[in-house]
Amino acid sequence: MIIDVHGHMSAPNDYYAWKASLLSHRGAHGGKPPVISDDALVASYHEPHPSFGNISHMEHIDKAGIDLQLISPRPFQMMHSERPAKLVDWFTEETNNLIHRTTELFPGRFKGVAGMPQSPDYTPAQWTKELRRTVTELGFVGAMLNPDPHEGLQIPPALGDEYWYPVYEELCALDVPVLIHAAGCKPPAREPYSLHFIQEETVGVWSLINSNVLKDFPDLKVIVSHGGGAIPYQVGRFLPSVVRTGVSYLDKLRSLYFDSCLYTRDSLELLMKVVGTDRVLFGSEKPGTGSQIDPETGRWFDDIHLLIDDIDWLEAEGREAVFEGNARKLFRL
Amino acid sequence: MIIDVHGHMSAPNDYYAWKASLLSHRGAHGGKPPVISDDALVASYHEPHPSFGNISHMEHIDKAGIDLQLISPRPFQMMHSERPAKLVDWFTEETNNLIHRTTELFPGRFKGVAGMPQSPDYTPAQWTKELRRTVTELGFVGAMLNPDPHEGLQIPPALGDEYWYPVYEELCALDVPVLIHAAGCKPPAREPYSLHFIQEETVGVWSLINSNVLKDFPDLKVIVSHGGGAIPYQVGRFLPSVVRTGVSYLDKLRSLYFDSCLYTRDSLELLMKVVGTDRVLFGSEKPGTGSQIDPETGRWFDDIHLLIDDIDWLEAEGREAVFEGNARKLFRL
Amino acid sequence: MIIDVHGHMSAPNDYYAWKASLLSHRGAHGGKPPVISDDALVASYHEPHPSFGNISHMEHIDKAGIDLQLISPRPFQMMHSERPAKLVDWFTEETNNLIHRTTELFPGRFKGVAGMPQSPDYTPAQWTKELRRTVTELGFVGAMLNPDPHEGLQIPPALGDEYWYPVYEELCALDVPVLIHAAGCKPPAREPYSLHFIQEETVGVWSLINSNVLKDFPDLKVIVSHGGGAIPYQVGRFLPSVVRTGVSYLDKLRSLYFDSCLYTRDSLELLMKVVGTDRVLFGSEKPGTGSQIDPETGRWFDDIHLLIDDIDWLEAEGREAVFEGNARKLFRL
Amino acid sequence: MIIDVHGHMSAPNDYYAWKASLLSHRGAHGGKPPVISDDALVASYHEPHPSFGNISHMEHIDKAGIDLQLISPRPFQMMHSERPAKLVDWFTEETNNLIHRTTELFPGRFKGVAGMPQSPDYTPAQWTKELRRTVTELGFVGAMLNPDPHEGLQIPPALGDEYWYPVYEELCALDVPVLIHAAGCKPPAREPYSLHFIQEETVGVWSLINSNVLKDFPDLKVIVSHGGGAIPYQVGRFLPSVVRTGVSYLDKLRSLYFDSCLYTRDSLELLMKVVGTDRVLFGSEKPGTGSQIDPETGRWFDDIHLLIDDIDWLEAEGREAVFEGNARKLFRL
Amino acid sequence: MIIDVHGHMSAPNDYYAWKASLLSHRGAHGGKPPVISDDALVASYHEPHPSFGNISHMEHIDKAGIDLQLISPRPFQMMHSERPAKLVDWFTEETNNLIHRTTELFPGRFKGVAGMPQSPDYTPAQWTKELRRTVTELGFVGAMLNPDPHEGLQIPPALGDEYWYPVYEELCALDVPVLIHAAGCKPPAREPYSLHFIQEETVGVWSLINSNVLKDFPDLKVIVSHGGGAIPYQVGRFLPSVVRTGVSYLDKLRSLYFDSCLYTRDSLELLMKVVGTDRVLFGSEKPGTGSQIDPETGRWFDDIHLLIDDIDWLEAEGREAVFEGNARKLFRL
Amino acid sequence: MIIDVHGHMSAPNDYYAWKASLLSHRGAHGGKPPVISDDALVASYHEPHPSFGNISHMEHIDKAGIDLQLISPRPFQMMHSERPAKLVDWFTEETNNLIHRTTELFPGRFKGVAGMPQSPDYTPAQWTKELRRTVTELGFVGAMLNPDPHEGLQIPPALGDEYWYPVYEELCALDVPVLIHAAGCKPPAREPYSLHFIQEETVGVWSLINSNVLKDFPDLKVIVSHGGGAIPYQVGRFLPSVVRTGVSYLDKLRSLYFDSCLYTRDSLELLMKVVGTDRVLFGSEKPGTGSQIDPETGRWFDDIHLLIDDIDWLEAEGREAVFEGNARKLFRL
Repeated sequence: MIIDVHGHMSAPNDYYAWKASLLSHRGAHGGKPPVISDDALVASYHEPHPSFGNISHMEHIDKAGIDLQLISPRPFQMMHSERPAKLVDWFTEETNNLIHRTTELFPGRFKGVAGMPQSPDYTPAQWTKELRRTVTELGFVGAMLNPDPHEGLQIPPALGDEYWYPVYEELCALDVPVLIHAAGCKPPAREPYSLHFIQEETVGVWSLINSNVLKDFPDLKVIVSHGGGAIPYQVGRFLPSVVRTGVSYLDKLRSLYFDSCLYTRDSLELLMKVVGTDRVLFGSEKPGTGSQIDPETGRWFDDIHLLIDDIDWLEAEGREAVFEGNARKLFRL
Repeated sequence: MIIDVHGHMSAPNDYYAWKASLLSHRGAHGGKPPVISDDALVASYHEPHPSFGNISHMEHIDKAGIDLQLISPRPFQMMHSERPAKLVDWFTEETNNLIHRTTELFPGRFKGVAGMPQSPDYTPAQWTKELRRTVTELGFVGAMLNPDPHEGLQIPPALGDEYWYPVYEELCALDVPVLIHAAGCKPPAREPYSLHFIQEETVGVWSLINSNVLKDFPDLKVIVSHGGGAIPYQVGRFLPSVVRTGVSYLDKLRSLYFDSCLYTRDSLELLMKVVGTDRVLFGSEKPGTGSQIDPETGRWFDDIHLLIDDIDWLEAEGREAVFEGNARKLFRL
Repeated sequence: MIIDVHGHMSAPNDYYAWKASLLSHRGAHGGKPPVISDDALVASYHEPHPSFGNISHMEHIDKAGIDLQLISPRPFQMMHSERPAKLVDWFTEETNNLIHRTTELFPGRFKGVAGMPQSPDYTPAQWTKELRRTVTELGFVGAMLNPDPHEGLQIPPALGDEYWYPVYEELCALDVPVLIHAAGCKPPAREPYSLHFIQEETVGVWSLINSNVLKDFPDLKVIVSHGGGAIPYQVGRFLPSVVRTGVSYLDKLRSLYFDSCLYTRDSLELLMKVVGTDRVLFGSEKPGTGSQIDPETGRWFDDIHLLIDDIDWLEAEGREAVFEGNARKLFRL
Repeated sequence: MIIDVHGHMSAPNDYYAWKASLLSHRGAHGGKPPVISDDALVASYHEPHPSFGNISHMEHIDKAGIDLQLISPRPFQMMHSERPAKLVDWFTEETNNLIHRTTELFPGRFKGVAGMPQSPDYTPAQWTKELRRTVTELGFVGAMLNPDPHEGLQIPPALGDEYWYPVYEELCALDVPVLIHAAGCKPPAREPYSLHFIQEETVGVWSLINSNVLKDFPDLKVIVSHGGGAIPYQVGRFLPSVVRTGVSYLDKLRSLYFDSCLYTRDSLELLMKVVGTDRVLFGSEKPGTGSQIDPETGRWFDDIHLLIDDIDWLEAEGREAVFEGNARKLFRL
Repeated sequence: MIIDVHGHMSAPNDYYAWKASLLSHRGAHGGKPPVISDDALVASYHEPHPSFGNISHMEHIDKAGIDLQLISPRPFQMMHSERPAKLVDWFTEETNNLIHRTTELFPGRFKGVAGMPQSPDYTPAQWTKELRRTVTELGFVGAMLNPDPHEGLQIPPALGDEYWYPVYEELCALDVPVLIHAAGCKPPAREPYSLHFIQEETVGVWSLINSNVLKDFPDLKVIVSHGGGAIPYQVGRFLPSVVRTGVSYLDKLRSLYFDSCLYTRDSLELLMKVVGTDRVLFGSEKPGTGSQIDPETGRWFDDIHLLIDDIDWLEAEGREAVFEGNARKLFRL
Repeated sequence: MIIDVHGHMSAPNDYYAWKASLLSHRGAHGGKPPVISDDALVASYHEPHPSFGNISHMEHIDKAGIDLQLISPRPFQMMHSERPAKLVDWFTEETNNLIHRTTELFPGRFKGVAGMPQSPDYTPAQWTKELRRTVTELGFVGAMLNPDPHEGLQIPPALGDEYWYPVYEELCALDVPVLIHAAGCKPPAREPYSLHFIQEETVGVWSLINSNVLKDFPDLKVIVSHGGGAIPYQVGRFLPSVVRTGVSYLDKLRSLYFDSCLYTRDSLELLMKVVGTDRVLFGSEKPGTGSQIDPETGRWFDDIHLLIDDIDWLEAEGREAVFEGNARKLFRL
């Protein structure tokens, strides 16, 4: 059985046209979302999509043998930095509602991971109201956290800063894991959103480990997307800190979890070797960035399950942990 | 016969979903527009739309007896202030292309009025390349000009400033009129886009009249949308200037044109009395802001042609000028 | 009998020279106002003035048959944005004192309308101390409120924002009406102060109506200067909101009052038709912007009473309400 | 005979009321100055004034035995930082015109020292047009230069910077001296204008001496107001530079001139000892800051000529140079 | 006997290399100071130094007959504006510790004057923790206060502002004097740090005297470095205030103390005449800015004791007060 | 034979104390560097250093069998963002001079890699003057380039931007490789300098590959420090671009070179597999960040040569290329 902890919702174009409209009227027309029928919603999972390599969301996960996918908002669309902040409220709430409806329309196939209305004009404590709603009322099993609500416009406090504590408190109170995952990226930031994810994960991991967060919130369950940014590869830079602190950096790193959302076998192997298979959760981001067919291999670039299958030294137990066991424990599935 | 100089394009939701996508990936996925079939484009004019009072674009103009409508981009969607600036390029070009296709798909029914990629990160001279393309290659008959490319984020030079001269030069070189019409409006500006239109027109008329623009560009043909903002109503404030300048303010005001896009008979009467029927062009913005049925009268709020019909003192000649003649002359139709 | 609710004080040049001095020493010489004798103060109302068309303040109101004029500070001189803020305190206090002395020197002819020291460096609650002083100690009957204390330097919260609530509370506590009237206007704002008045009134009316102010302060009495900016003319844009809210926009608009400070008969007619004669108060701003003789008619541009007299459809009752009755009720005169 | 190189104009209150008006309408009423009759202008020199200790300008200079006074604009009123910049143009031009008329109305008693329209929105080259006008057309004998056109709002380039070269070039071309004298001072600067003068002179002297200005403009004649700010007193700090540069700091300092506008005998003695009597010009700033009677001595605080008389070690030659000779040479009187 | 109240610490290059390192790693390597042995510390006082004219700290004070020197941090190195603020903490604490060790290694020869970690990112109340530590635990006898913690980057509140009150409170509670002395100076400020000292002292004295500080803290003992900036020389400008306030400015000035850190006899004489010998404390800043030999006289420029000896009119009592008595009283030595 | 392309200079503390002094006086004492004798310079390579694990620079490279080390300025000390910019000039020039002297004092053991005075207040064209001097006059074989001259204070143009072209032109003209290596990192950036290196390399590689640089400068030789930041590990994200561009991302990546400055065998293996052994140059950054002994293995963390030796699948040819051949070719050694 495969549980994919890193999937993002699909939705019909009416949803995106509504977003375009919100960004145009900036609230003047109010926040009422468009009527999206169950049929339309279901169809958005069954219809082939050009940006998904011309097959559908369901075909993607079916072919990959994904039995259960945790779906969260599609991050690069989240527009946390847009003003006025109520746009973010409206859009986040409807997004979570669509995720919830999807979990009900495809029983047993999806679970919800919540977005929060992370406008920098609100306090993190204000964001958590929606987190609580989705978990307690809609049955969501986790949340996604964007470390850069400014989306590149200015530099936010790092994840180790007390700025973020109200979120950590609520996550612990609700006992759900959080997936670190940035959203959009605007100039003056130099990088595209896809690379911004990596940059923010790199800083995020560094900051969490070098702060008091994990000590102040011993029960906090943090999953870092995309294999932890640069950290597992660059981990050597931090190893000498053991001399100063007496604590192995690798041990600290292993207080976090990482998803497998890398698209090369070499990188997956490195990740597992560095943090251990008990700290890696299968995540495919399917369908998404990697949903193209590799002209050389004929495989989908995001067929991460095949890459894992290819790792010959990986034993059954480790494989099971990555594909299913770790997720089951962490999300209490 | 009725010529409506102030109409805005319709488009299928794929177009708006593409806009949402551009604003999310900020150029990382490139600027290729979605494939929109002729059928889909035609349908967007024939399908009832909730924000149009649940009838279609074509029904609106058919019922109102509009024989020819000049269509421009839907202003509040134009996102001139978004970054990076190439987003504005891509979106404007595709928007003009859709308008062009519409004029061809409904022969004789529509003419194009161009949008320009008015990013504040470009110079006005750079904007005019697209203006030239649309007029010389796509047969457009005029252009729309947003006096506030910052969309409320900061204060732009007023229309009388030399900043705008490259646009005026190109308009004169191409011999096409320009419709003054603001676009979106973001915080910290306090007003919704719809009121921002009025505010920008008010400042725009004031600035044009108090600058050298009309002297430096004697052939420039300017139409101010929405009946000229506040100016015709507040014109009394400016009348004493005749004592200082020796030129009647009303004469100066009559060097501009105004559309009839007001939704009350009192206001239409005031406009015609102040600037004269030879300076008013029929404009309905249909379907748009006013496309709701007035529960009291049973009429559409934007049935401006009926309001004009109701004006008993308006003679045939004036009526014909407003409905058709002025537009025919100005746009050389 | 005519009551003019919109008049501004006159003062001798010593007062303005003192202002120039304050703006030069910025407080270094202290805030002591110049000694202005009763004779000098009276003379400033009796002497012809070039910017008043070379007749005096008293001649103006005498000729126009104004029996009682409510006088407030001359707004464009109020310098709310100047720093340090104590300059604004000193100047406002002396200004109100001069108004008070004027009301005593011309018994029965004038009543005071207070200015507040609206420095953006103070809180609105701090402004109200002077409001209370003028009403309770000096017998003032109302206050003037500048919606833009930044005077064009940056964008303030709109009048519907809670930022302004301390002022509304004090107005209700004192049970006096407030006249919305902007003051100066500096770059980067593009418009002259006179047009800034209109722009701020337009946004102000919009904001009041689209906020909770009138619900939270049901007893608040608001008079909008200059016939309400652009709103009565552009009111059609807002009519469709009835479909969404179920409340007629015109009804909402009629929860405010408007002065007649427009200088054309067409505009006055439009105003009275839109809001009703029970919502219009005679205001002439005499002597002021309109105090020039129209070379065509030989009338003063600001002879608004003549324009009202010219309106043939206006019946006695409506006329009396506008000229006297509405003011009497609102200001409890 | 006494020549006072540091006097400032007097003017009737109409002039200051006009300034207040300019700062209120910001150009909307145009730049036409008020009509000030010769009688009014003369009276402003003959009338006692409270801020001059209740005697008149003429009484002040008569009592002090000042035969010829060089008068410049009253600096703290110059408002160089006000916007739009044309206000500064208008006000400076009229100010210089009033000075010119004064020199003609009091033949032989006054000579003009020009103000320049030092708006930071203009280039220094643009300022010099007015300098040339006043010298070549109005017979002015020098100019005043404000080292801080921002008036405390932000930090300008120091006087040694090439920013100022166009002014130095014009001064050399016209062969007239320049009086360094700051103008107003606004928050966030902490000091009152009067102390700002001193601060700017201190930085100005330091910067001129540590730059290439005096090498690049060997004929430039610079007079520093108020005895050179802090420099003559603090000169010891700079003496060790001789070890590094091989040039005596005192020699460098003596390439500038200083006025005697200090109000204590000790300071005057120190100044003359440090820079030499051939480098000090009598300047009283009468009537001005010091025009109060010292309750202890019964003297006017600004009776600087008496303080100089009191210096017993000062010989006739030095005394004559300070009172007359240096000014005569420098200004070619 | 000579007590020098204005000396600054010496230190080995390891200390400065550590500072360079802090400014490079910005805290990443932690704040642990380098190990500096007693021998190395002592040597830094005994070794000749090029910037001290190639003799040692001890030789300087020995030759000058300074029996006891109060040493504080070397101000231009204090880097109060550097970020993050903890750098300032670490560096200030170690600096004070080195001063303390010095006082112990040279018994009877030095007393400590504390630096405070004046980062603008901390509140003044936070700074005082280190002040208390140094006085109560390390036996320091006073503190140094930098009026510009921004070091020229932006304009701070003046010393008369309530911003500074927590420092004044702590100084009074500990009953120790404070030496006003600026630190570094960065662009956009125009002046070098050495002139910045003077500018800040000038504003500082002005502000203290024109505020309520001396009234609110009657026991506060303030010593202004470098002879009080420009004030004693420019004091005449402020004398007329007696007419307005009824209090002699000189009396107010005499509520402060001044050190003798001027390098010319004329200036020392002026200072003593203006404020009186009971208000002047010997301060040499040796070794420092003035530690060069004057090629003309063969004296060290900072041989201030010789300059004082040269003042013929200074009587024994005054001389003793300046050299010893005033310091002894003020610092309770 | 081992050539280490990534070494940084050592220097005595006098050099760093001078840096501290520059940052304190900000140029007021001029830019003259301290006298550093040959003996002192040599000693700084032979003396044990606590931050190098208490052995010396020479011991480090001797033990590691490094025959030739290319040494560049120690990046985190480079202070490119400090003002005024001339500080950066002075410091960079002296730094390069010290490197040059080192290459001469240890003949055959070191070659110089130049720093440039990368102040953001200069243009990149201005930086290249020092590059040319070091290569043509001092025999340097390459240059180091900091992608973030603002050091975290604001966001610079990415390396693919034309802003950087003058540097690329000069590098090609001189035919020397460039080592991409960031310098310091200040708040508001969140990360320590050491992680900033990684972040800047990640963005740098992405930007170079997604720009025209490698097409416009086909002969440009770029080495990315620290194994290319996150890119080799995250390379999977970019592989699908082949579908859009038709060019393999791995091929593009292989147009750059990477050093081996990673400290774990897994990462080194991944790097070599991803980019090929012909694209990896041995770089140890010894002594530096990794110069601590691993308590578990007893090895130095930065014994990268041992990690490479441990890679069993690496054949002789590849090993030789990494250790020597690639460097020899690229730097023409």
